[in-house]
Amino acid sequence: MTDLWAGGRRETLALRPKDFRVTRLIPTRWRDNDSYGHINNALYYEFFDTAINSYLLERLPNHPVWQTHQNFVAESGCRYLSEIGFPAPLLLAHRVARLGRSSVTYELGIFDASSIEPGPIAALGRWVHVFVDNATHKPTAIPGDVRAVLEEAMSPA
Amino acid sequence: MTDLWAGGRRETLALRPKDFRVTRLIPTRWRDNDSYGHINNALYYEFFDTAINSYLLERLPNHPVWQTHQNFVAESGCRYLSEIGFPAPLLLAHRVARLGRSSVTYELGIFDASSIEPGPIAALGRWVHVFVDNATHKPTAIPGDVRAVLEEAMSPA
Amino acid sequence: MTDLWAGGRRETLALRPKDFRVTRLIPTRWRDNDSYGHINNALYYEFFDTAINSYLLERLPNHPVWQTHQNFVAESGCRYLSEIGFPAPLLLAHRVARLGRSSVTYELGIFDASSIEPGPIAALGRWVHVFVDNATHKPTAIPGDVRAVLEEAMSPA
Amino acid sequence: MTDLWAGGRRETLALRPKDFRVTRLIPTRWRDNDSYGHINNALYYEFFDTAINSYLLERLPNHPVWQTHQNFVAESGCRYLSEIGFPAPLLLAHRVARLGRSSVTYELGIFDASSIEPGPIAALGRWVHVFVDNATHKPTAIPGDVRAVLEEAMSPA
Repeated sequence: MTDLWAGGRRETLALRPKDFRVTRLIPTRWRDNDSYGHINNALYYEFFDTAINSYLLERLPNHPVWQTHQNFVAESGCRYLSEIGFPAPLLLAHRVARLGRSSVTYELGIFDASSIEPGPIAALGRWVHVFVDNATHKPTAIPGDVRAVLEEAMSPA
Repeated sequence: MTDLWAGGRRETLALRPKDFRVTRLIPTRWRDNDSYGHINNALYYEFFDTAINSYLLERLPNHPVWQTHQNFVAESGCRYLSEIGFPAPLLLAHRVARLGRSSVTYELGIFDASSIEPGPIAALGRWVHVFVDNATHKPTAIPGDVRAVLEEAMSPA
Repeated sequence: MTDLWAGGRRETLALRPKDFRVTRLIPTRWRDNDSYGHINNALYYEFFDTAINSYLLERLPNHPVWQTHQNFVAESGCRYLSEIGFPAPLLLAHRVARLGRSSVTYELGIFDASSIEPGPIAALGRWVHVFVDNATHKPTAIPGDVRAVLEEAMSPA
Repeated sequence: MTDLWAGGRRETLALRPKDFRVTRLIPTRWRDNDSYGHINNALYYEFFDTAINSYLLERLPNHPVWQTHQNFVAESGCRYLSEIGFPAPLLLAHRVARLGRSSVTYELGIFDASSIEPGPIAALGRWVHVFVDNATHKPTAIPGDVRAVLEEAMSPA
């Protein structure tokens, strides 16, 4: 399986929700739009954060990891392919592209969800989370059951 | 009909979604929480803005008013009654409390929607919108059909 | 001393930085502007929060209160008087209007600081902070030395 | 001149403000911190946007380009190297790494500016702006005098 992030512009534009593994609908807010009348570029990263953390929280709502660990972002990136804006809702799709001892690399797609059939990909994101110890802020191994949930998100079936 | 905003603490705490007129579910985002681990106080105003504008946009999606007018906030206020936070979704309820020639006063309630039965009111808001001309930024009369949609939101049936 | 918030529109428009007690220059950011090309109404509350907390942190940088207490917002309000926007810097002025056992009421003014002489007041805010215990989230008495710093901000000399 | 972004971890950690070309002090705000008590990862992109746009606006305040063009972000990325947070002010440093017909690639560094001598680099960013026509939203050539200002930011002297 190749990283989607490594693809050229043509491959990227061909991406659809089914090329990821987990999807979530995120309504937009009036304030998400900036002076240009479309969603501000920095907001895409808040959507990525929400999609990734919501997936884990829903699967492991009372897991002790939420007390003992924090998810630090080590690196993030986004390619903006077409404009989207409030009031259109967004479809956030993500997959785990790589899974290390303490780090996870996600790839994420954002789609305009104002029609039943989502539009072409509006943005492709990349995100590296590192699990750190809550007290020391040092990287630490991802617990086994969290790892299992991340593996489920690893690739399209 | 009295303004909900004029009520004392006891009346305020007794408010329920049915005391308003329009409701909308708003999912929260990871970034909505601040250092205290609950939704940042300023965000409530972004929720109010979204609830109010979404109602009008959904009822009048292609109305020329969106090109000719802007909705300026003249005054806003919020009383914070209990803590809420991501990942809990919110129920936003609002009503039109007063309707002037160019201004509208809204009252809004925020409820924790993580259970089927929404919890007690978490915040009560007040919001005054003034319709201004897009070019001059001066107050201007609310067009008749926009007015009709606002009147529908005026009070519990 | 009367509350500035109780004044009518004429008195409010006559307010100048000297009518408050503490001032702070806050540069704006590109993202502060919204679709209307001026600073988003909710952002004013983030400025209030920053002005109030910065004043206390600078006076009492290593005070144990930052570990034992949290400042919860009980109520906030803002009247918007004229448009301001990035790239103009803002002058934030504030004073303590009332000081209770566990709560503080602030009044705040926002001024356009793009000229040496600040412009007319752009917004008047009101803010009620309650000191709560970090563990129980219940109101608790403001410690004596914090109180002394708040008293210094109580009114124009 | 090589791209800073192409460097390994060791080279990145050695970067100092002098390795960029333009610097700007950006105070933080209480709300910049998230649940983890440090600046939220998405905010770094708002800082990048502000640094880049402020530089151009200050050099070309009344240039017609602000009416005829918009700066769309085509791609952005950030590597997070150490934690920073309110109330520490930030030093934002940037340089133009590449200059095309209609696009500009920036590299940016964020440093903790709470001491007179800025600390080690806290984050390295990369940002691609495309000048688009205000009406069509299609890429268009960067005007000559804007180009000259961008060339001044091209590398350390």
